[in-house]
Amino acid sequence: MKLYNANAGNPKRVRIFISEKGIDIPRVDLEAGTETRTEDFHKINSLQELPVLELDDGRIITESVAICRYLEAQFPEPPLMGRDAFEQGHIEMWSQRIFHQLFLPHGHYVRHTIPLFKDVVTQVPEFAAAERAVIPQRWEWLNEEMSDGRPFIAGDDFSIADIHGMVVLMLGGFFDLPVPVSCTFANQWSERVRARPSWDA
Amino acid sequence: MKLYNANAGNPKRVRIFISEKGIDIPRVDLEAGTETRTEDFHKINSLQELPVLELDDGRIITESVAICRYLEAQFPEPPLMGRDAFEQGHIEMWSQRIFHQLFLPHGHYVRHTIPLFKDVVTQVPEFAAAERAVIPQRWEWLNEEMSDGRPFIAGDDFSIADIHGMVVLMLGGFFDLPVPVSCTFANQWSERVRARPSWDA
Repeated sequence: MKLYNANAGNPKRVRIFISEKGIDIPRVDLEAGTETRTEDFHKINSLQELPVLELDDGRIITESVAICRYLEAQFPEPPLMGRDAFEQGHIEMWSQRIFHQLFLPHGHYVRHTIPLFKDVVTQVPEFAAAERAVIPQRWEWLNEEMSDGRPFIAGDDFSIADIHGMVVLMLGGFFDLPVPVSCTFANQWSERVRARPSWDA
Repeated sequence: MKLYNANAGNPKRVRIFISEKGIDIPRVDLEAGTETRTEDFHKINSLQELPVLELDDGRIITESVAICRYLEAQFPEPPLMGRDAFEQGHIEMWSQRIFHQLFLPHGHYVRHTIPLFKDVVTQVPEFAAAERAVIPQRWEWLNEEMSDGRPFIAGDDFSIADIHGMVVLMLGGFFDLPVPVSCTFANQWSERVRARPSWDA
């Protein structure tokens, strides 16, 4: 196996997942937006996005969540996407919630603001500003949800929902969008996940 | 079990999934945007969104994809999310691709255009127009990807990736965003999924 990797949020998601699984996958580091726009890379991923996992038989899996799903099935321990039906559904619920409530507004803000994406999307500054503006209230929502004092987003155990949250923290760090100070429970969670070795993956 | 349901895209995704599984789950039909904004419903889903699955023991799963994931584990036949590791990863890849390339621009267009969402998001007409404008080229991309003549989005078998596509077709039908006529393979796929009993779920 090898992982086509870049210094960006979606590859980071997979790198954290791999670190939490305690496995090792060789990487091919590419520069997103330039080295992905070649004809050769188009054959690997027609969307010219990273990350991409190439299996030993040459088969390809793109999309960070899909790569995690493959790795979860190949390397079940420790489980990061749930064991029984309810856990699987519950962790997927929290993954979707973190994605829609927090990752998407960060992602939209970034895509509609930084020069890297100006040839990829029609950047709309008013939309970027509106998406940035909702982020504090989304943290307040998560903080309220975590006010039962549970250590991780989906409950007692670390899961891929926390990894989605870690990618949000990383983007928030780059773009000056910290967890609001008033969000005590969310900040305690943030400190907890930042202390994991996988934070630096 | 019961499914809190509405006449909208995300509940439709779950209704198609249930139909394809050949199971029957009682429904509680609510009007999105009004009957979901009560204090009682806030206790069921703090995001006040539909669909929601309530289990017999009272536990709750929100988010359409999470409900499908729970049902897939509880009712494995026919498999709609893949059997072995590669199939699971491959179907997740196509689900993510359809979600990001096609569902999101439709969803963004709708959320930034129709009155139902005017209190939910800061509607930005320029963003709505830009998102609407990319849709034909996204169909062209999918059409090129399906030019190997495979019957379904992820290969020989119907999967949840097709269900994501069916929800896109449904939204496209409501908002006058048809599959471009030039997209022969995508149109053949569209006819194929529209002929399934689950289309009317």
